[in-house]
Amino acid sequence: MLAKPVITLTTDFGLKDPFVGLMKGVILGINPNAIIIDITHDISRHNIFEAAQVISMSYKYFPPTSIHIVVVDPGVGSSRRPILVTTEDHYFIGPDNGVFTAVYETSHNHFFNVIEITAKHYYRPMSGFTFHGRDIFAPIAAYLSKGTESRVFGEQIEDFARINIPKPVISNNSVLNGEIVSMDKFGNAISNITPDDMAQLAPLEDKNKFKILFNNHEISMVTYYAESQDDKLHGIINSFGHLEIFVYQNSVAEKFNIKIGDSVRVSLV
Amino acid sequence: MLAKPVITLTTDFGLKDPFVGLMKGVILGINPNAIIIDITHDISRHNIFEAAQVISMSYKYFPPTSIHIVVVDPGVGSSRRPILVTTEDHYFIGPDNGVFTAVYETSHNHFFNVIEITAKHYYRPMSGFTFHGRDIFAPIAAYLSKGTESRVFGEQIEDFARINIPKPVISNNSVLNGEIVSMDKFGNAISNITPDDMAQLAPLEDKNKFKILFNNHEISMVTYYAESQDDKLHGIINSFGHLEIFVYQNSVAEKFNIKIGDSVRVSLV
Amino acid sequence: MLAKPVITLTTDFGLKDPFVGLMKGVILGINPNAIIIDITHDISRHNIFEAAQVISMSYKYFPPTSIHIVVVDPGVGSSRRPILVTTEDHYFIGPDNGVFTAVYETSHNHFFNVIEITAKHYYRPMSGFTFHGRDIFAPIAAYLSKGTESRVFGEQIEDFARINIPKPVISNNSVLNGEIVSMDKFGNAISNITPDDMAQLAPLEDKNKFKILFNNHEISMVTYYAESQDDKLHGIINSFGHLEIFVYQNSVAEKFNIKIGDSVRVSLV
Repeated sequence: MLAKPVITLTTDFGLKDPFVGLMKGVILGINPNAIIIDITHDISRHNIFEAAQVISMSYKYFPPTSIHIVVVDPGVGSSRRPILVTTEDHYFIGPDNGVFTAVYETSHNHFFNVIEITAKHYYRPMSGFTFHGRDIFAPIAAYLSKGTESRVFGEQIEDFARINIPKPVISNNSVLNGEIVSMDKFGNAISNITPDDMAQLAPLEDKNKFKILFNNHEISMVTYYAESQDDKLHGIINSFGHLEIFVYQNSVAEKFNIKIGDSVRVSLV
Repeated sequence: MLAKPVITLTTDFGLKDPFVGLMKGVILGINPNAIIIDITHDISRHNIFEAAQVISMSYKYFPPTSIHIVVVDPGVGSSRRPILVTTEDHYFIGPDNGVFTAVYETSHNHFFNVIEITAKHYYRPMSGFTFHGRDIFAPIAAYLSKGTESRVFGEQIEDFARINIPKPVISNNSVLNGEIVSMDKFGNAISNITPDDMAQLAPLEDKNKFKILFNNHEISMVTYYAESQDDKLHGIINSFGHLEIFVYQNSVAEKFNIKIGDSVRVSLV
Repeated sequence: MLAKPVITLTTDFGLKDPFVGLMKGVILGINPNAIIIDITHDISRHNIFEAAQVISMSYKYFPPTSIHIVVVDPGVGSSRRPILVTTEDHYFIGPDNGVFTAVYETSHNHFFNVIEITAKHYYRPMSGFTFHGRDIFAPIAAYLSKGTESRVFGEQIEDFARINIPKPVISNNSVLNGEIVSMDKFGNAISNITPDDMAQLAPLEDKNKFKILFNNHEISMVTYYAESQDDKLHGIINSFGHLEIFVYQNSVAEKFNIKIGDSVRVSLV
């Protein structure tokens, strides 16, 4: 563990209510040396898929041994289990509802363990109430950040939940079939297609070789946003390493009628 | 004082303007060891009642000796006094406009002192401007967090302001009469009724004994949100220990025409 | 450098996406002792003028040697240069698009240097992607906060970009002609006129000597917001030392049809 361990928070709590602040208060009461960083609290309410995308794209940018709490938890209070996921160099704490599916699928060397958290003496006293973020996940993260070993929190399980995260597939006619998996604040539409996927068609260096079919448009690739300052759709490999569809200084989501799940196809010119 | 003292912030400033950031800058300039945590900056503008609810429900989750700055201050710049409130284990700094009323009423053993802050040499130089959060409350909190004793900031007063905070009452016919005191981001309606109030009617363990009258509905109690996944109103003891009215994965505030002050009555079945 | 160096962030990223969190993760991976403070992430998209106002009004409230990252960067990925600005007691890091113009103009003794950041071995590995906040500005700030000397990041330049920031002028007939340069969250309209400008007309102590012409209204000055609790426009020297037009507990921006650039004139009664 680091002398100044990092704990990140990803939730659908928003910032109007004091929920996020209280989780931080509980953590600091147990480990005053923890550095707590917000990834986002604006996950769409109860959207496990969206949270799964965000945490899997984000955690790598934090120092090794960082602890990532994710609380998007429509089943809070039911029998769904609290879990601690350990990968080669990061920790994840949250509900066992599939929110860590993309972490499982992209973890380095596919190495990860899932522990069901059962050591209730590490919880805050709860009197039957229902704020696991504050009463379970925050204290477990705080004790872990102080050096408590992960095995004392519970036993390893194999039957943890997964959600379906669509992967791009190459069809016979050399077309890469992906879809939109998230929209950012600027209205850019982010697909599940990565440079590795595209490299199966042709070397990525020559971006002019690719054409993108999206929303009945045939779209060309650029390297940076300001490269084509027109009002047309363009494709770009974004800063998370995903193919993204954008319009320069405009919102794709607003200008077109885009939604999560829309088809994105890539082929050679 | 802690080696890493915690200072919390609760305001109606929002996060668009740099006001909150500047308060943090001033604090860190005086005490670089302070850990500053946002409780919320989205209190409705000038809503002292709402801020009073939020701080009294929140402060207990922070470590003992935490310092809580609250700036919801419609009278800033007028003759209203800046105050420092000390309870058995927490400190509060803000305007003397009643925003700490619920802290006075719920403090442990009803022990608290109110000090009028008059030691102007601890203020930032102000030239007559009007940002007490930055120029008075932030520096006083920072010096306090460094170990400056509270008595040096001013004299104890007894005529501090209070606001009216409604309490539930039991009428002759064994009905507990409370009201809605806040709405959270999810549209849940939170009443001023606590488990202690309900225990005056019957032991709380048997939740089926209670019925709630709210908005012309007769409502039953559940123990956790996902317990009744229908589209009806339900009651729950929420994570702050208040009776809350909710609809599973929906907004009570939007579906019904609920406002702060609406009547909530609890009786036995 | 401080033992606990302060790094501030001012961007147009918003808080929904994980962009801000990732910048913090990168900084902490390089310097775990950095204290990272948000000034705002709600600069209007690509509004360099607004960001220039916010950073120049804000930085002075942070401790000397603080490092201020500003990322409002419509030209990201193009040939616009990353720069490091050093003043007598603060550091600024961001794109060379004029966002630091007001810092240049108001820096103490007009002392400042602009360095083009060219030392790519301090960047995160980028593979041609386009998130300079995370991959250039964050790591440069983190290394600077650890004591790396600013000259190692690149060479001083003189041809840095500036934007036009309007200054108030006094016309022959003793009228001070300024304009609205920003609107705050409360709908108050902030002008570019300062007490120093007004003092060229008359000593500021006697505020009744001044009249303000704004939006076809003749407006009087007050000293604090609650001083005139009517529904009329009033002028006040705000907490940043600018002449501001407000309506008590109301939004000037909503009640009138105000926009950035509207004329504000001050003369003697």
